[in-house]
Amino acid sequence: MSFKPTILKLGGSVITDKKKPLTPNLQAIERLANEIAQAKVSSLIVVHGGGSFGHYLAKQYNLTEGYGDPSQVFGFSETHRAMTKLNSLVMEALISHRINAVVVQPSSFMVTKAGRIQSMEKKPLKRMLDMGLVPVLYGDVVLDSEMGFAILSGDQLVSSLALNFAASRIIMGGDVDGLYTKDPKVTKSAKLVRRVTLEELKAQKHDIEGSKVTDVTGGMLGKVRELIPAIEHNIQALLVNATKPQRVYKALRGEKVIGTILDRG
Amino acid sequence: MSFKPTILKLGGSVITDKKKPLTPNLQAIERLANEIAQAKVSSLIVVHGGGSFGHYLAKQYNLTEGYGDPSQVFGFSETHRAMTKLNSLVMEALISHRINAVVVQPSSFMVTKAGRIQSMEKKPLKRMLDMGLVPVLYGDVVLDSEMGFAILSGDQLVSSLALNFAASRIIMGGDVDGLYTKDPKVTKSAKLVRRVTLEELKAQKHDIEGSKVTDVTGGMLGKVRELIPAIEHNIQALLVNATKPQRVYKALRGEKVIGTILDRG
Repeated sequence: MSFKPTILKLGGSVITDKKKPLTPNLQAIERLANEIAQAKVSSLIVVHGGGSFGHYLAKQYNLTEGYGDPSQVFGFSETHRAMTKLNSLVMEALISHRINAVVVQPSSFMVTKAGRIQSMEKKPLKRMLDMGLVPVLYGDVVLDSEMGFAILSGDQLVSSLALNFAASRIIMGGDVDGLYTKDPKVTKSAKLVRRVTLEELKAQKHDIEGSKVTDVTGGMLGKVRELIPAIEHNIQALLVNATKPQRVYKALRGEKVIGTILDRG
Repeated sequence: MSFKPTILKLGGSVITDKKKPLTPNLQAIERLANEIAQAKVSSLIVVHGGGSFGHYLAKQYNLTEGYGDPSQVFGFSETHRAMTKLNSLVMEALISHRINAVVVQPSSFMVTKAGRIQSMEKKPLKRMLDMGLVPVLYGDVVLDSEMGFAILSGDQLVSSLALNFAASRIIMGGDVDGLYTKDPKVTKSAKLVRRVTLEELKAQKHDIEGSKVTDVTGGMLGKVRELIPAIEHNIQALLVNATKPQRVYKALRGEKVIGTILDRG
């Protein structure tokens, strides 16, 4: 098989309660697993964020700055362990819907350099896609050749996977409808932008700050900036609100859906 | 840091009830986590078997033969999921004893060819050891370049890791005291052999069949045969009974312990 994979991101703000440490949103996870199963995409990679699992501990042990103190080594263990627990809930839901899901841990097959992906082993993932498996990855603490360790965001991962596995498209499921002219959580007159070109994105024509809750891997601006390399390679990205039922399903099916398209223009 | 790592195998027959599908031996897992924590080994890799988690499902979906039928793809997902559940119990115990443990999934960073390890990405594991983390791996279903997928035994993994990371020694924690002149479960006059050289091992001077319960990755003979490449490279292996308290602790500390030493002679 040689379908070009779709890459679906499930934001940490969607599958967890970002305000409460280590609290999953089980209802959202179950609903999204069902939407993914119903959509029957022929080749799919799922990436999920850490939300209140990863960020909470990463902050507590100050892991964002890399290694500075031996006590952080146990913090690495605990943070990774928390992420595997969240991932386990996602896997349980996907497999209960008979999706051929298989977890692929970023920390097991990639290293970063100063926080950016430096190398990754592509063979296992490539073969999984060929076999019709659905690899599931997540934002993770990883080993870093300069900083000792680093936090790899699900967003950087999405962009890198899209390029390395020649994705057909990216679907980013977040907690807002897409990009707005202003922050919709602050300004009532904010309007959803239905399409943003690469040129506009680079010029930052729109105010794309959106996430008010702390996110150590960056808010909406960071998320969208991470996608630029993929968009430059003509991989279209679609931002949809995954907290609203059927949005992810419609996006996966290629149906008309409320959201923001990012493309090369 | 550049300590040569110790590789510790915890047999599936020790950490699970091999006669009951998907049944962990939580008491053994907890005790072994405590023994590992007390031993304070400076550089350590832990590998555990699948026992009644991996073997049960692998058999049910006939995964040992590789890919033959599309229904097996979901079997791959389910088998891997079962292994991550068993691993999760091991991780929980290790981390509760404040061991800097971090899981490394074989299926995420290696592929096999006809059931034998063909390639592995060493960078993340190498850096983990340098950082003082304790990588924890396990027998896993993996992608195979000839068979589609394959079952990678914890024993093959131990031998390969020992060679690739220049281990100082291997400690194999099983459910028997070591190698016997005859099968101790059948023949009462069977005697424990305290040391077996490579030459003797190759000549199979001793009857080293031992496991009576089905093990799709091979019984004691298979386990010991897997270690030959490491022993040839002068890495000593020690077989101990991990179902008996303090044996693994003593082995890790380098203290005198009941068991069988396998060395180049």
